[in-house]
Amino acid sequence: MSTYIAPMNDIRFALHDVLQVESLFARLGFEDATRDTVDAVLDECARLCETVLAPLNRVGDVQGVRFDKTTGAVTTPDGFKAAYDQFVEGGWTGMSAPTEFGGMNMPHAIGICLEEMIDAANLAWSNFPLLSHGAVNALHHHGEAWQKEVFLKPLIAGTWTGTMCLTEPHCGTDLGMLKTRAEPVGTDVYAITGTKIFITAGEHDLTPNIVHLVLARLPDAPEGSRGISLFVVPKLRVARDGTVGGRNAVRCGAVEHKMGIHGSATCVMNFDGAEGYLVGQPHKGLMAMFTMMNTARLGVGVQGLGLATRAYENALRYARERLQSRALSGPKLPAKPADPILVQPDVRRMLLTCKALTEGGRLLAYHAGSLVDGAAHGADAAARKDADDLLGFLTPIVKGCLTEWGNECTSHALQCYGGHGYIAEHGMEQLARDARITTLYEGTTGIQALDLMGRKVLQLQGAGLRVFLGMIETFCAEHEGTPTLAEFTGPLRAHAAQWQQITGSIAERAAADPEEIGAAAYDYMFFSGYVALAYWWARSVAVADASSHPETFKAGKRETARFYFARILPRTAMHAAAITSGPATLLSVPDEAFDS
Amino acid sequence: MSTYIAPMNDIRFALHDVLQVESLFARLGFEDATRDTVDAVLDECARLCETVLAPLNRVGDVQGVRFDKTTGAVTTPDGFKAAYDQFVEGGWTGMSAPTEFGGMNMPHAIGICLEEMIDAANLAWSNFPLLSHGAVNALHHHGEAWQKEVFLKPLIAGTWTGTMCLTEPHCGTDLGMLKTRAEPVGTDVYAITGTKIFITAGEHDLTPNIVHLVLARLPDAPEGSRGISLFVVPKLRVARDGTVGGRNAVRCGAVEHKMGIHGSATCVMNFDGAEGYLVGQPHKGLMAMFTMMNTARLGVGVQGLGLATRAYENALRYARERLQSRALSGPKLPAKPADPILVQPDVRRMLLTCKALTEGGRLLAYHAGSLVDGAAHGADAAARKDADDLLGFLTPIVKGCLTEWGNECTSHALQCYGGHGYIAEHGMEQLARDARITTLYEGTTGIQALDLMGRKVLQLQGAGLRVFLGMIETFCAEHEGTPTLAEFTGPLRAHAAQWQQITGSIAERAAADPEEIGAAAYDYMFFSGYVALAYWWARSVAVADASSHPETFKAGKRETARFYFARILPRTAMHAAAITSGPATLLSVPDEAFDS
Repeated sequence: MSTYIAPMNDIRFALHDVLQVESLFARLGFEDATRDTVDAVLDECARLCETVLAPLNRVGDVQGVRFDKTTGAVTTPDGFKAAYDQFVEGGWTGMSAPTEFGGMNMPHAIGICLEEMIDAANLAWSNFPLLSHGAVNALHHHGEAWQKEVFLKPLIAGTWTGTMCLTEPHCGTDLGMLKTRAEPVGTDVYAITGTKIFITAGEHDLTPNIVHLVLARLPDAPEGSRGISLFVVPKLRVARDGTVGGRNAVRCGAVEHKMGIHGSATCVMNFDGAEGYLVGQPHKGLMAMFTMMNTARLGVGVQGLGLATRAYENALRYARERLQSRALSGPKLPAKPADPILVQPDVRRMLLTCKALTEGGRLLAYHAGSLVDGAAHGADAAARKDADDLLGFLTPIVKGCLTEWGNECTSHALQCYGGHGYIAEHGMEQLARDARITTLYEGTTGIQALDLMGRKVLQLQGAGLRVFLGMIETFCAEHEGTPTLAEFTGPLRAHAAQWQQITGSIAERAAADPEEIGAAAYDYMFFSGYVALAYWWARSVAVADASSHPETFKAGKRETARFYFARILPRTAMHAAAITSGPATLLSVPDEAFDS
Repeated sequence: MSTYIAPMNDIRFALHDVLQVESLFARLGFEDATRDTVDAVLDECARLCETVLAPLNRVGDVQGVRFDKTTGAVTTPDGFKAAYDQFVEGGWTGMSAPTEFGGMNMPHAIGICLEEMIDAANLAWSNFPLLSHGAVNALHHHGEAWQKEVFLKPLIAGTWTGTMCLTEPHCGTDLGMLKTRAEPVGTDVYAITGTKIFITAGEHDLTPNIVHLVLARLPDAPEGSRGISLFVVPKLRVARDGTVGGRNAVRCGAVEHKMGIHGSATCVMNFDGAEGYLVGQPHKGLMAMFTMMNTARLGVGVQGLGLATRAYENALRYARERLQSRALSGPKLPAKPADPILVQPDVRRMLLTCKALTEGGRLLAYHAGSLVDGAAHGADAAARKDADDLLGFLTPIVKGCLTEWGNECTSHALQCYGGHGYIAEHGMEQLARDARITTLYEGTTGIQALDLMGRKVLQLQGAGLRVFLGMIETFCAEHEGTPTLAEFTGPLRAHAAQWQQITGSIAERAAADPEEIGAAAYDYMFFSGYVALAYWWARSVAVADASSHPETFKAGKRETARFYFARILPRTAMHAAAITSGPATLLSVPDEAFDS
């Protein structure tokens, strides 16, 4: 069975050494988020993840959720409820929620670290509390005062959970097509009717009530995406004074059988005139939903990171233990019947790819998390705008790249086990199956790429990119005189210049041909992700070198950075070539000539 | 549910137009393998695959094989036995086996096409007859006359099946460590004792007898891989006169729970003094096993091709049917509520990647299949040696690249479905799970790469590569004066030159540092695979242009080739950079610094 030990060394290195969050948090007004408090929170969460959630990971996979057709009830796997109760008692559900409604107001940057550990320990389980964050965000930003009062407290306390009900059978990406109706049935009360699919945690036995945030159309709604409104529809009716009543007309019609995250309840939800309240302005629901979706997207990126990390540490242990064949340069452990497979260059290639993508990806994700705090609490408008621009730019990169890398790394890790990786009892194949959802939900990889290219780069004229390029330039300038960093700053600068140049040339061509956007988007996102990681790796070496960490740690960072620059960063060449080839190479194949 | 329609158009294009097998087969002495016969065989096999095997694919996944602990019996999923009986009655098990023992003596090149279809239709099921080929090969090449007489006929008729028993719990790749013992107990009879794992079709209910080919050590065996002998150990005892007796002391101890191919019986086999006969020379068993393993490796490469093809055709259908969003350049089907997602450049990118890798990969695999025939039946020793050298060189490329591409393509195809791809009922996730085994069994991708780099390139001094480079040069020279091919022949020549140069420089560095081999192997294999595919794509365009195929077909080949050269072939740059960086980037990270 795969195990999980939170990578506390690297998490602390990322937070404290590289991102220097203590002083950042102080500047942003999080007085309580001192280094000691942060470390205590992290340690406590790691303990919970390692000892309570991680051991339930395989249980959830084997049992899955059970659905009772007659009652519409969903039963979670053995142990899930007890673990959830413990999670609620520990106050984890409200860690980064506002104190006003019972939260702890820890920075989002810390919330991201906790999510990484929880996801790695048990992704299927993590989906139950995860969606509550989205509901909390939506209600906090767009809800009326009474809605906040009534719904936020139990959601933040974790005694209720939330959902996001967007997708319908005929529409997912294109929400403008959605059909669910909302009819006024009294003062500010609406009857919601329609079918939603892929509703994570739509029904379960962890809490008595479930708060659905539902997209639907009012009778006078314009067509398309400008006619969608947001409603809050609880499973148990809730009056404006907070009184909880009987069952609302919403019911789980089925749970999906999936490739992975079997312990997560992916529900078909049937709304049959269910009572709901409008959240925010009529017809402005999609915008409200996008607010919360951006945070959710960061969260899904972190899921990729968590799974990759867990897969990597198991594969590393296996590679140290499994004796098989000899090193090509001669036996390393002559007294043993064979050498550990860690001596094989190709096994090291797979492991170092995991190490480089996870440790680099961790900085990418944590930094983005800190920008959520910066965008909300920055000292002045300019600082908040910079943080928000950069956050918007990085969010699709975190979601798009970290989930694809999560798939790549869980696959490498499985591969290190040879045939044993394919056998369920080792747990590696579960990690690969679970990881596969992350490039699909909360917007596929292709949708992230379009968001990055179309909206964050072209519409917003590359504001976020400019901030990131500024960070690279500042870093390179700071270390101009450091010869030991020249091997990194040189290629980093060159890639930054190419990034800027490619962005400009896409923008130019897109002005003449809108198909350019879709044709370049995917490769542009990965080009960006790899250059961003080059920055974080270069900076990791600089920070490690200047730190009091042991020499082995420093060597690990430096040599992994060298690996990254030599063997991973060259992937940018392939992406650049694809971008340069333009839309014609995708659009010129006649539709009817695709068949083999 | 995913369906399967054999891609007969492209299969015929590959066989008849590009490889011109009719004249090849005539030259090699396969008089019966005329175009008409070949097409009839292919059509009949396609019908069987589409109507009998493909519909059982999901049944096998859902039910899996069932194991009875008390009796050690394994029950295959519903319908598997009836399908197998039909397969046997149709004479399919002996299609490319020698007529002397009841086979049909069709060329191996045709056997490969049939395997592609059978694998695509139902990979789990295909594993039951597959391993018989290996047993047939081993006995045919190394068995005594009476062993051939007694075992080959029922194996070829399909009334018995075969297995290859190599792996043990502590050794897979490194067979030199194996412990299974063979004690002489009479004239030419041995008692085999030991535990073998991962035995495909080790036990089942399809046939009354199962013929195990088992690697074990004689009492006087030298240590390591030079002390391994091969034995034939039937489930039901078989006397030298062919009389079938009672149960032998071999029994299935468990079946593995796996990520995919649930309908395939992956068995732990316990040999407890089971009676067996020596096959071939004492202590030469590994060599005999390798003979059959090479054919099996080609077969597994074709599994990757088959699954990718099936995944692609389903994703293509979905992309044509699923209406969602609009083309960025404006509505393509204004009368519909949205455009089919096939208009999206990123969806086309994924689909064209599948088309380019499967249609190109088909030629790579079929050509290798034809070399099996050429190596055995070529006109003279020089021709046979060339075919054998090239076959040896291409086998790890076919196995290594086609299985990795099989994983890539099934994943792209799943991704085209969005969230629906993750749901079991669509069948796409099964294809991805099933594909995942192919990079592991019959030698992992890393092992293929080492076989290519260490043995086929360095030990054999690149004999096979020279033959392939000769083919490229001949093709380019032939089309020197064809301006419409210049866009392909130019880059192809450049890549061929780089291939030769890289090979030379690895060889040079490997002479000084044996770690160079392991450090370069993986990237060298993919570099080779992509250049090989560039050749087949260029040649496909030339052949299509000169053919009487419809213009749409020609445009499909040309534009897909353009896509391949522009967006896939640049992957070679990344592999070349990794090769150039050498072993240091993999070996310099201290072992104890891998932990995060």
